[in-house]
Amino acid sequence: MDDVLIKDALIVTCDGSHSIIENGVMAVSHGKVTALEQSDTIAAENLSAKKIVSANGNIVMPGLINMHCHAADSLFRGLVENLPLEEWLGRVWVAEKAILTPETTYLGCILGLAENLLSGSTTVMDMFWYPDETVKAAKDLGMRISTGGIFFDLPGIGGRSHEDFISEANNFYQKYSYDDSVIPAILPHGSYTVSPQNLSEAKSIADRHGMLFCTHAAETQAEQKDIKTRYDNSVIRHLDKHKLLGETSVLAHCVHLDEEEISLLAQSKTNVVLNPMSNLKLGSGIAPVKAMHEAGINLTIGTDGAISGNDLDMWLAMRLTCGLAKGVNMEADALTAKQVLHMATISGAKALGKSDTLGSIEIGKNADFILVDINNSHSIPLFDPITHLVFGAGRSDVTDVFVSGKHVVENKKINGLNIEKIHEEVRQLAPSIKASLE
Amino acid sequence: MDDVLIKDALIVTCDGSHSIIENGVMAVSHGKVTALEQSDTIAAENLSAKKIVSANGNIVMPGLINMHCHAADSLFRGLVENLPLEEWLGRVWVAEKAILTPETTYLGCILGLAENLLSGSTTVMDMFWYPDETVKAAKDLGMRISTGGIFFDLPGIGGRSHEDFISEANNFYQKYSYDDSVIPAILPHGSYTVSPQNLSEAKSIADRHGMLFCTHAAETQAEQKDIKTRYDNSVIRHLDKHKLLGETSVLAHCVHLDEEEISLLAQSKTNVVLNPMSNLKLGSGIAPVKAMHEAGINLTIGTDGAISGNDLDMWLAMRLTCGLAKGVNMEADALTAKQVLHMATISGAKALGKSDTLGSIEIGKNADFILVDINNSHSIPLFDPITHLVFGAGRSDVTDVFVSGKHVVENKKINGLNIEKIHEEVRQLAPSIKASLE
Repeated sequence: MDDVLIKDALIVTCDGSHSIIENGVMAVSHGKVTALEQSDTIAAENLSAKKIVSANGNIVMPGLINMHCHAADSLFRGLVENLPLEEWLGRVWVAEKAILTPETTYLGCILGLAENLLSGSTTVMDMFWYPDETVKAAKDLGMRISTGGIFFDLPGIGGRSHEDFISEANNFYQKYSYDDSVIPAILPHGSYTVSPQNLSEAKSIADRHGMLFCTHAAETQAEQKDIKTRYDNSVIRHLDKHKLLGETSVLAHCVHLDEEEISLLAQSKTNVVLNPMSNLKLGSGIAPVKAMHEAGINLTIGTDGAISGNDLDMWLAMRLTCGLAKGVNMEADALTAKQVLHMATISGAKALGKSDTLGSIEIGKNADFILVDINNSHSIPLFDPITHLVFGAGRSDVTDVFVSGKHVVENKKINGLNIEKIHEEVRQLAPSIKASLE
Repeated sequence: MDDVLIKDALIVTCDGSHSIIENGVMAVSHGKVTALEQSDTIAAENLSAKKIVSANGNIVMPGLINMHCHAADSLFRGLVENLPLEEWLGRVWVAEKAILTPETTYLGCILGLAENLLSGSTTVMDMFWYPDETVKAAKDLGMRISTGGIFFDLPGIGGRSHEDFISEANNFYQKYSYDDSVIPAILPHGSYTVSPQNLSEAKSIADRHGMLFCTHAAETQAEQKDIKTRYDNSVIRHLDKHKLLGETSVLAHCVHLDEEEISLLAQSKTNVVLNPMSNLKLGSGIAPVKAMHEAGINLTIGTDGAISGNDLDMWLAMRLTCGLAKGVNMEADALTAKQVLHMATISGAKALGKSDTLGSIEIGKNADFILVDINNSHSIPLFDPITHLVFGAGRSDVTDVFVSGKHVVENKKINGLNIEKIHEEVRQLAPSIKASLE
């Protein structure tokens, strides 16, 4: 007997051949997809599942993979506005130092990860100061997380030194390497805040344990200028010189690149995370997505933190990724909805080293999937589900979310979470957050 | 006794001084705002209103004014993808000719205007083939509409000639000039589809009756090239030469302009409608919003039709307008949320010649307002309501809509409309729509 059976679904699989199954049925057992077919061919034994959920003709698709987030920064949403990245970071840093403890970080993580989950992201790669709190929040919500130790040359939140960061990074791996819901990573902040020596040390820890190496890179012109002054190099060449590129590396942003840097990223199979909303709002610029896509780089999509965005909406990120590529290049076919939907699902899984278990609905993979309502005025008529998902659907259309076959969001509510209480706790903290910058 | 009293509201007025009233109360009588104050000062007689609605601390703000839409084109949503405007128009035109009758146009208008209303647009400027049907749909939904006769040199839908268009344009005015919910306009398609003579004739009818003159202008590079070839001029200079600019003119798009054209628009007080999503998706380009704003042009915001967008989401349009200005110019303060919120409200009212009655919540103005839910994971904490409205809020946060004090959307449902029936009728029509291009 299967654990869950989803019926009457328009299944957008995001598999290699972009298969769509109309009037589909999916069976889930022990957290994996065990059957996937049109309903007229369904095996009778599947009708004995413990839980049968009708999608009522709505779309079933893989959970989105948000490849760049700082979930707990949701505490500071809307606090710092109309400033470029560098000045903005200075202000954010003051507020973070005043407010963040393990407890407030957990609160921020629950707030930010709940927003991710409610809008259909089942896996999030998160970079923040207390990664254990991030993991705890993700587990409490029932979602998948990729995170780990951070590196920063200056003393970090809680007065932690470089040695503390190293020991935390190693401890994180020891703690979670056998945990199916955690994908351990090492996340130095960036090449303008971490020395080449410390970046290399982070990379060697990552490589020793087979962890991902993730950092911000080439986000602004000012960053490029800074790296040029310090190291007489551009950001990507600097990373390349120190052997920090490669298929277990994930670079967030990559807005300012020249052709040779695009080639370096492609040849080294480095993964890139596009964060279009954050890049626009901070005035960082617009990433050369078409050129990167044509070069064959594994492009993935992220929201960045809600302090830059100001929310954690992967639907907006998908629509912007596709729209900006078309608009900036003045070519309506510069990038297709199909290509962008894959960036937000299977390409994210590939970057995480998990394309065998995540990122698409296929037999044997983890049953991480979402239901998307298409019975509303902005979804009718629906000629092509994939076009609709990228250019019409939105966060509020996600009604149900399953992770490893577990029904974590049911009719827009997170099972087992008193979200009103979380909201109230954040509201109570808000005056102190505001005061931290006054 | 007042008709409606809204209490416990965070009122974002969009008035000239950007006032925000915390813990606010608003009274409405005979469709107008009659009182607006903090709740601790409320007059006792207002507590005897026929209907008292608590906003439960949520935002109350003016209804959005969508200044460029083709509502009935929602029938063709997602039908034509990955093509630039000119080829796209050719395909759209084939589908429209095969499908559109007054009856199907009404159905498309209800679908598209319902989406507008549910997402908080209380006034829409719409350009389409059967304006009487557009008005009928708007009235059935209880919203405000600006529309009127269209001009097109080739025979239009239904085989109508130039003479038919002229008589329809005049009749439209006769029919609706005294109707408070209709703002009559004349809407020739564009300078690449309508000759200077016919544009001038349209303008003279508009001027004779005191109607608005609205057209597409400077949307693509191909359009600029076409006008250059035909008239040895750029689009805006061509319109200027034929005396088609001015404060009762509304130009949709204005993506491709030089500095002198920006000055021409500013000096003539011509109104411009920004449609960022449509311009991106069709690969038309990105409008020079910062330069137009600095030149003092009255900038307003629109969604364009759902066949280009692919939805009718003014929240997305606001966020893109602000984000693109910052991102393209690489200046985080290129445009502020406050400026953009005003474009979507009071600037739209100004373009419609209705800044005395629409576009802000002020005593004596029409009570067109919406409730925006802020009790959710993407809206907490909330340090500045205006930043939140532009960079965090979305269509699904709109819970209630009032037009002239009438409660037309209540808890996300349109009063008096069987929307399921409309959806079903569109679904029934969808196979024919699809077949029209096969």
